Amino acid sequence: MRTGIYLFAFILLLSTAFISKPTRVVFFGDSITQAGVNPGGYIDMLKKTLPADQFELIGAGIGGNKIYDLYLRMEDDVLAKKPDVVVIWVGVNDVWHKASSGTGTDPDKFVRFYEAVIKKLQANNIRVVLCTPAAIGEKTDMTNQQDGDLNQYSAFIRDLATRYNLPLVDLRKAFQEYDLKNNPENKDRGVLTTDRVHLNEKGNQFVADQMKAVLTAGK
Amino acid sequence: MRTGIYLFAFILLLSTAFISKPTRVVFFGDSITQAGVNPGGYIDMLKKTLPADQFELIGAGIGGNKIYDLYLRMEDDVLAKKPDVVVIWVGVNDVWHKASSGTGTDPDKFVRFYEAVIKKLQANNIRVVLCTPAAIGEKTDMTNQQDGDLNQYSAFIRDLATRYNLPLVDLRKAFQEYDLKNNPENKDRGVLTTDRVHLNEKGNQFVADQMKAVLTAGK
Amino acid sequence: MRTGIYLFAFILLLSTAFISKPTRVVFFGDSITQAGVNPGGYIDMLKKTLPADQFELIGAGIGGNKIYDLYLRMEDDVLAKKPDVVVIWVGVNDVWHKASSGTGTDPDKFVRFYEAVIKKLQANNIRVVLCTPAAIGEKTDMTNQQDGDLNQYSAFIRDLATRYNLPLVDLRKAFQEYDLKNNPENKDRGVLTTDRVHLNEKGNQFVADQMKAVLTAGK
Amino acid sequence: MRTGIYLFAFILLLSTAFISKPTRVVFFGDSITQAGVNPGGYIDMLKKTLPADQFELIGAGIGGNKIYDLYLRMEDDVLAKKPDVVVIWVGVNDVWHKASSGTGTDPDKFVRFYEAVIKKLQANNIRVVLCTPAAIGEKTDMTNQQDGDLNQYSAFIRDLATRYNLPLVDLRKAFQEYDLKNNPENKDRGVLTTDRVHLNEKGNQFVADQMKAVLTAGK
Repeated sequence: MRTGIYLFAFILLLSTAFISKPTRVVFFGDSITQAGVNPGGYIDMLKKTLPADQFELIGAGIGGNKIYDLYLRMEDDVLAKKPDVVVIWVGVNDVWHKASSGTGTDPDKFVRFYEAVIKKLQANNIRVVLCTPAAIGEKTDMTNQQDGDLNQYSAFIRDLATRYNLPLVDLRKAFQEYDLKNNPENKDRGVLTTDRVHLNEKGNQFVADQMKAVLTAGK
Repeated sequence: MRTGIYLFAFILLLSTAFISKPTRVVFFGDSITQAGVNPGGYIDMLKKTLPADQFELIGAGIGGNKIYDLYLRMEDDVLAKKPDVVVIWVGVNDVWHKASSGTGTDPDKFVRFYEAVIKKLQANNIRVVLCTPAAIGEKTDMTNQQDGDLNQYSAFIRDLATRYNLPLVDLRKAFQEYDLKNNPENKDRGVLTTDRVHLNEKGNQFVADQMKAVLTAGK
Repeated sequence: MRTGIYLFAFILLLSTAFISKPTRVVFFGDSITQAGVNPGGYIDMLKKTLPADQFELIGAGIGGNKIYDLYLRMEDDVLAKKPDVVVIWVGVNDVWHKASSGTGTDPDKFVRFYEAVIKKLQANNIRVVLCTPAAIGEKTDMTNQQDGDLNQYSAFIRDLATRYNLPLVDLRKAFQEYDLKNNPENKDRGVLTTDRVHLNEKGNQFVADQMKAVLTAGK
Repeated sequence: MRTGIYLFAFILLLSTAFISKPTRVVFFGDSITQAGVNPGGYIDMLKKTLPADQFELIGAGIGGNKIYDLYLRMEDDVLAKKPDVVVIWVGVNDVWHKASSGTGTDPDKFVRFYEAVIKKLQANNIRVVLCTPAAIGEKTDMTNQQDGDLNQYSAFIRDLATRYNLPLVDLRKAFQEYDLKNNPENKDRGVLTTDRVHLNEKGNQFVADQMKAVLTAGK
């Protein structure tokens, strides 16, 4: 994975060094990313911190999306925009919908569709960045209802990043480490999220920082 | 739809009248179709009743399959076999898995993937036959747990048959009518199924008859 | 059941004829009943139509309640109020929570707890009226997701009414008949409900009428 | 809790020292306990290791039971047997049925019914021992689907043990510690279970040892 990050950084460097136009990045995800383009959202924050002549950032998040929703709409919502980089951040609904509507995603099918998305993006010469789903609940003692399943699906994504040699923003790991330090009362929300899932101000800043580190790696 | 059936029959007629090789039909579905190739299964029964020089019947059923499983494996399991006709029979698991594993298929996504399967088959010049999911429980008073949802997904399939002008084997309707006449005790299994879902001997015969009527229409 | 209704009506008649104080009725249920005491709610409407010297009406509905929630809180919320009559209206959440949180009620356990509630009320000399759950969706072609299950749980309640010889307000049946006449467009809401489950103005009036018919039977 | 264990041990000691008849222990639970009375099961193993003149062990496990099943059948299956001690071991189905049938137990209702069981046993002068649910999957990296929820419900039971000052067999904790040492390959079954939930030979021995430690504490 480390090799993946350096290679990725090197290509980014080349693309910004020798080509005049900025790197176009599409953030492809669910309601968290949909809210990310709002003022104060993580994409909005990235826009303010990354130089506009080097990065063009586009939000493509839709509430309730699971991996196969991304698959179904990638032609219209991603490929049509001709991005250089796509950041995939999905997984919360694949797990959550099991309980909230009985329509979550089977583990093996999650991987199958995720791979199909990666392959199609790569076939279009798009560089792909993966993210793990951050949280459904911020309790730090592994007693959030979906913790086991979120850990499982995050492990799938880490494995995909390794197998496809792709940069990974491991938000699940980052959130857990942050919460272990900053959530001594074992609250289920209010540290990085407003409602156990969606980002509060600190959460948006935290995600923006994590994303920036990968997008600018090597510069 | 009636027009669809006649057109379909006419093309079948042409294909068997002027071309020497038999019409290759792939039955694409779930565990019910997987069992259909066993001795006494509905595909096995069809093989015995349809002339081998006119029809080559191939089973492509896998237990637990939902519509997006069909989508994911259609290249390998269907297109590679170069069929003339594909009979799609799916839907029970899309509904059932909501309760049995939390991984059923959202209504709108069911239609989206179903359409994607139809379009890809048609793009390969394959004639497509649709079937509605027959039953999860044979009680006739609409008190089987999934009756509402099975009716809903069957309505989606009927609508697809109309919109794409495709022949339809309306097994849901046929099973309900048969059970209303032949299940006076309101039993949940044992009339056409062994276990509320999978076909018993009568069920296999019944489905074979329904399929035959559409496959040989106009001959 | 017919006998049950007349006996019930006769006892009500006696109790109002020879005893000066009004019959105290507790409506024991879920969010639909919780909203029933609001201005324009079905209990509020009943209060305006039933003579206050004959009927004292008390709401005891709590949002999200299933049959075992009623069981757990019946001491505090019902028995403590020393009612003459308790109208039990529950079932929507027992079915709905299967899909919306994975915590619906098993069919056999639904009956077990329902019987426990009936027996405990009867042991306290309280007359019990049963109601079937009206609707989760108003489509008339049996394609609402939970139709099969709601029909099943309604059948359980009808059976309990028969076995315990109790008056029944069959709201499921009444709603279906009303919708068949008044919902020609097969809408899923807006006829008697605002949101597929909770009552609009017409719905509150309709339920009040159905309840009134049973509460005043024989007077 | 420590005080609870000593007090409990002291009373057990008294009861076996001054009263001639053995302490009657009922194991009250689900399929794991139902299998526990079979040859090689954990109750069978306990019978072979605990002196028959001091302990009479009775299995009262039924497959699929959740906490409210225990509540519903405690009169017939436990109180009627006039036990001195009841070991409650439940929770796996309360969590698991959320995904496998949509009829798991709400967290707050789990605690409510658990408390109702404890109180009723105590009102009959029965000493109560609590156990946490051991496992649904033995993977050690917290990626078993239900890990978060099992941890949550185990935390509820630990809290009940503290609040009611009752001895606790913390099988969840014991299994996790054992698996961390003995499951280096991160397998989901085969260490203490046959199928992620039910006990293999080692598992039965392990549980018997844990139970024995609490039942004989102080002797």
